[in-house]
Amino acid sequence: MTAFQNLQDEICQSLEELDGEGKFAQDLWTMSSGGGGGRTRIIEAAHIEKGGVNFSHVSGTVSDQLKKILKKEGKQYHATGVSIVLHPVNPFVPIIHMNIRYFEMDDEIWWFGGGIDLTPHYIDDSEAAFLHESLRSVCDRTDKAYYSRFKQWADDYFFIRHRQETRGVGGIFFDRLDQSEGHSKEELFDFVLGVGQEFTKIYKQLFVKNFQRKYTDDNVAWRNYRRGRYVEFNLVWDRGTRFGLETGGRTESILMSLPATANWIYDYKPEANSAEAHTQARLKKGVDWIV
Amino acid sequence: MTAFQNLQDEICQSLEELDGEGKFAQDLWTMSSGGGGGRTRIIEAAHIEKGGVNFSHVSGTVSDQLKKILKKEGKQYHATGVSIVLHPVNPFVPIIHMNIRYFEMDDEIWWFGGGIDLTPHYIDDSEAAFLHESLRSVCDRTDKAYYSRFKQWADDYFFIRHRQETRGVGGIFFDRLDQSEGHSKEELFDFVLGVGQEFTKIYKQLFVKNFQRKYTDDNVAWRNYRRGRYVEFNLVWDRGTRFGLETGGRTESILMSLPATANWIYDYKPEANSAEAHTQARLKKGVDWIV
Repeated sequence: MTAFQNLQDEICQSLEELDGEGKFAQDLWTMSSGGGGGRTRIIEAAHIEKGGVNFSHVSGTVSDQLKKILKKEGKQYHATGVSIVLHPVNPFVPIIHMNIRYFEMDDEIWWFGGGIDLTPHYIDDSEAAFLHESLRSVCDRTDKAYYSRFKQWADDYFFIRHRQETRGVGGIFFDRLDQSEGHSKEELFDFVLGVGQEFTKIYKQLFVKNFQRKYTDDNVAWRNYRRGRYVEFNLVWDRGTRFGLETGGRTESILMSLPATANWIYDYKPEANSAEAHTQARLKKGVDWIV
Repeated sequence: MTAFQNLQDEICQSLEELDGEGKFAQDLWTMSSGGGGGRTRIIEAAHIEKGGVNFSHVSGTVSDQLKKILKKEGKQYHATGVSIVLHPVNPFVPIIHMNIRYFEMDDEIWWFGGGIDLTPHYIDDSEAAFLHESLRSVCDRTDKAYYSRFKQWADDYFFIRHRQETRGVGGIFFDRLDQSEGHSKEELFDFVLGVGQEFTKIYKQLFVKNFQRKYTDDNVAWRNYRRGRYVEFNLVWDRGTRFGLETGGRTESILMSLPATANWIYDYKPEANSAEAHTQARLKKGVDWIV
């Protein structure tokens, strides 16, 4: 899967160009038990306040805990993936997340998973439409049924249950895509790589459009408040994060997804008819962003 | 259980006196399903940056989910408690948590739970000793075996597994104390009320000693970084928080435990031999704080 490592390289290079000043720092790590490790790359910069672009490839004996989670029997596994979260400085640039992953057990069982979802601090309907159109076109190249299915999956997955609100404007999410999909491993591999490549195009457009917009202290306060929700989702509900923390994954690589700073205000409600109230009201499942 | 409500009143009054300026705001709420509700009281003030002192009393039909968690059969339940978390402004004043609770099912099954634990941003061994001596003396009044047992329980409970560090200097934690303890319901009720009353004495001493100490921006940065750990513990591991969020409890009352602001810095390590490094090194289970 050098393709995944190459993708990580390409994305980091593009993001450094976007930020203009920041450079990724790299930590190479190896698993304390089992085999493999990863390349964790973190940027803390002028425009991308905190971001991570991680590659990992781990392998080992299938534990009882893993069997329980997978609901499958197996002996040896390999898992590899690229995972990204970016927290920008400018409140008008959205938070973005991308992940693609491949899992294999005993040479017989294999699947792909992944997705992209966008968490704007301020929802702009045209930007949400652009995101979803981009994702639909990537999906359509492999399977015309994918977009609507994976869009709904994202709505369900990126849902903050205790707030009854979505994490943002969604995107696509998919898991355990295998031969039962009617596509070969090569086709599905191309699909997830396509998702990874689309990530850069999407974020570049949203970043360039907004990163120099003027903003106020109130915009920053709202950004930090929304980041609090991001923390809540990731620590309470995100299965990937929880699986990692519960199974002794590398904590600092997993929690690169958390923002540099997040705020909580008791029972905060945005002012009626404000941009903040508009965003709050749009955080629902089932919105057709493509008009 | 008007004693619990009275305790809430007393504690709020004492904390307002300590802060000197802040006043608690109260939200009365009722359960959307089942019966009962609560009095959530929040302070956002000059010295206590964000704190909650909550009382609740809820009742209802025992759900399948609750049976699974309790590992007991039952029809009707009552649960009541007082729960406190305070996040001070001054980095040399510790974060503190106190909770006492009573649970009853079908008039036959009942138990008490609770505890106090302290999370200093900067550990001061003499203050940790004072905390533990105070808690030992409260425990000893009911049962000489309680302190060492509940101290260890707190070490195990307030443990951030994915960091392999304790949340702070511990304290006491206990759950499901019932007649099998060899104490009557009245004795155990007195015990938990004693814990609640001790809370004020403990916090007053630590607060008054430190709230006017001078501090630097670096102290604030470290405070916010340690608050990040508090968020991680509460959202990932705290059973009370997770139970509440997963069973449709009142989110804003549950998450009053989160700080106004928290920071994350990738793979941060305090400077060698600094006060921060001293604190980091002391966050271990099994420390005998009483010397």
